Amino acid sequence: MRSIVELIEWKRDGNRHTEADIARIVEAFTSGEMPDYQMAAWLMAAFLRGLDGDETVWLTRAMRDSGRVVDLSSVDAPVADKHSTGGVGDKTTLVLAPLVASCGVAVAKMSGRGLGHTGGTLDKLESIPGFSVEMDVEDFVEQVRRVGIAVIAQSPEICPADKKMYALRDVTGTVPSIPLIVSSILSKKAAGGASAIVLDVKTGSGAFMKTEEEARALARELQRVGRALGLKVQCVVSDMDQPLGRAVGNALEVCEAVRTLHGEGPEDLTELCLELGARMLRLAGVVVHDAEGRSRVEQALADGSALEAFRRWVAAQGGDPRVADDPEVLPRSDYSTVLSAERDGFVVGFDAEAVGRAAVALGAGRETKEDRVDPGAGIVLAVKRGDRVVRGDAIATLYASSVERLEMGLERLREAVRVASELPAPSALFHEV
Amino acid sequence: MRSIVELIEWKRDGNRHTEADIARIVEAFTSGEMPDYQMAAWLMAAFLRGLDGDETVWLTRAMRDSGRVVDLSSVDAPVADKHSTGGVGDKTTLVLAPLVASCGVAVAKMSGRGLGHTGGTLDKLESIPGFSVEMDVEDFVEQVRRVGIAVIAQSPEICPADKKMYALRDVTGTVPSIPLIVSSILSKKAAGGASAIVLDVKTGSGAFMKTEEEARALARELQRVGRALGLKVQCVVSDMDQPLGRAVGNALEVCEAVRTLHGEGPEDLTELCLELGARMLRLAGVVVHDAEGRSRVEQALADGSALEAFRRWVAAQGGDPRVADDPEVLPRSDYSTVLSAERDGFVVGFDAEAVGRAAVALGAGRETKEDRVDPGAGIVLAVKRGDRVVRGDAIATLYASSVERLEMGLERLREAVRVASELPAPSALFHEV
Repeated sequence: MRSIVELIEWKRDGNRHTEADIARIVEAFTSGEMPDYQMAAWLMAAFLRGLDGDETVWLTRAMRDSGRVVDLSSVDAPVADKHSTGGVGDKTTLVLAPLVASCGVAVAKMSGRGLGHTGGTLDKLESIPGFSVEMDVEDFVEQVRRVGIAVIAQSPEICPADKKMYALRDVTGTVPSIPLIVSSILSKKAAGGASAIVLDVKTGSGAFMKTEEEARALARELQRVGRALGLKVQCVVSDMDQPLGRAVGNALEVCEAVRTLHGEGPEDLTELCLELGARMLRLAGVVVHDAEGRSRVEQALADGSALEAFRRWVAAQGGDPRVADDPEVLPRSDYSTVLSAERDGFVVGFDAEAVGRAAVALGAGRETKEDRVDPGAGIVLAVKRGDRVVRGDAIATLYASSVERLEMGLERLREAVRVASELPAPSALFHEV
Repeated sequence: MRSIVELIEWKRDGNRHTEADIARIVEAFTSGEMPDYQMAAWLMAAFLRGLDGDETVWLTRAMRDSGRVVDLSSVDAPVADKHSTGGVGDKTTLVLAPLVASCGVAVAKMSGRGLGHTGGTLDKLESIPGFSVEMDVEDFVEQVRRVGIAVIAQSPEICPADKKMYALRDVTGTVPSIPLIVSSILSKKAAGGASAIVLDVKTGSGAFMKTEEEARALARELQRVGRALGLKVQCVVSDMDQPLGRAVGNALEVCEAVRTLHGEGPEDLTELCLELGARMLRLAGVVVHDAEGRSRVEQALADGSALEAFRRWVAAQGGDPRVADDPEVLPRSDYSTVLSAERDGFVVGFDAEAVGRAAVALGAGRETKEDRVDPGAGIVLAVKRGDRVVRGDAIATLYASSVERLEMGLERLREAVRVASELPAPSALFHEV
């Protein structure tokens, strides 16, 4: 058997690993036999020399098997999961989970917290008074069975290899590699137990994948590897050049999600949820065509059954179900201010990453893992790209818990927005479905 | 200022560092601010993306300046140093240091211990009863001044960055990179205080650089970077396809070095010492041409002044000076056996790395840093490549402290030797001077 150093050298020299090599690396790293510095060297070698299609499948499988694999066979309904590669203002899960659950597809999702300019679903849910995301795997399965939805924090029993590898990639410059991203996403999804998974790959300034080409390459690889692992996977490439919807910040986004469940949400968010929902219904096998799925979820939104599923879900996880009807139960920061247009024209730049960073400055996100999130802080955009403004019009309202943070956020948001004389080229919400 | 992660990403993407970038990396790593896993990622990125000529100079300088730089200006004589990239049976320093010291060039050398198939000068010296290689920098300088020779263990005050980096490279598959090898060698030599340095780059099966082309590339880079740091550097590329001399193992090599100082050494070792010695004299400025240096060192060997310098040196470091006249004071292992030729013919293969590994199996070297070396163990070759043997002739005598080790060593040595019908092509001791 080759030593760990020999395996690092093998990849360093551009050779292909066997399935056994990769299983050995993942096991040795998970057990602690292979220290962080050896994994860091292997990750950089894999980043620069690449992992081929088979190696990526083997890595994903070995990472999935590094911990517990959740068994959802006791759930009567078909179970689906949804994952987004991360964006700004992306509160899709909050709408989508009750939407498809009300159509008979259970949603079992383990999620992460926000870091950097992208928000995290857990932070958003925790802004609902009482809502708890910490739950052991048995209670998770039980809630999926009973309520049809559970969204909880990643269990430490699930994919320990990914947890350790991701923390290391974050500090060693080895994040943006398609094989490493694919294995990280799919190992967790596969271990989470759902067999039908819709993946929303974001592209644009606010996303990991800055270009459509990169996003498409990632989407193709996610589908290929997912299928190789026996999962039903459908990818959608969607826009993250500007924030999704109008709210950025935890309680503000919950509020917008609730409005969307009431049928009063922003067009882009509503449309994305309906499209993803239609695909989840088809993947889970409750409808045959996307079009049929689409009319089912439209119906669920219109007749209030999605909103009712949201209420049941919030209550099941200890949250105050009145949030579904009264946004006043949500926290809101004490200070607010308005960013106004300095000239007449059209909104052209609305750089999502910069808006995300402004929200972090306001207190809505984390710069480091240890930071605490301010649930009431954030931004509500009054305009979207292409909208016409005249000088003095409100562009956004900002919320923060201190005047200092408010000013920092205002300064950053001002840099994120641009008003020009020419109407910008329209950008599509979906790049590829 | 860029963060460490940004610097790793910079090199990962194939960009060129500034001098300030490299100084920052070395400082952060030495201080502990940059953890091992980040350095491992940077080292792999530097290995695969390369460091250009300027980056290598900056890295060497930053590593030199990571600790104390020895000041030898108080030594009246010109001071030279010598370094070999490591070989099997390479006891050159033991002959060369007294040889040039007796010609008026002081030798100040910090050295390392053996690891893997190559032996270390310190282990050889420590096989002399009483000889001590541990000394602080003040005493080191004082001994150079007083005796004209000091060879001691690398001080922890010198090049701490190299110490940490080398340990990490060893376990992360990042050893065989010319920029990293050059900076490791020259940063230590530069910090050791000598300004005239002869570097013996080994090539062949027993060396790091397996091919002459690689060895020449390393030699050129050592000369270029050395000069950029203000050092007088001369490289010699010499053969390590077969062991140097006939003895491999610590006390056995001391014994051979003493015989060489008596003018009775093997031809290849004697020739290498005279050639390197001539160059050290010229570099140090006591002669103008190599030819003049050559006759000076030949004279010193012939008239016993080199042997007398050896006696003074051994005594100064606490060793038993009788070793210069009586090999019986050296330890010798209890068990010995002879490897005989199994057929008539010429000795063709005498793979130096395999001979080195046989010596390690006998107890003469270390597999891991924690292993203890058996000073009396090793191999004395009865023949060299190209020698004619008849079946039953002795090829080598092996020494070990147990029958088990003796048998392990015998088995490995048998694999290292090949006897064939055809005379092998002659190999030159010097590939490039």
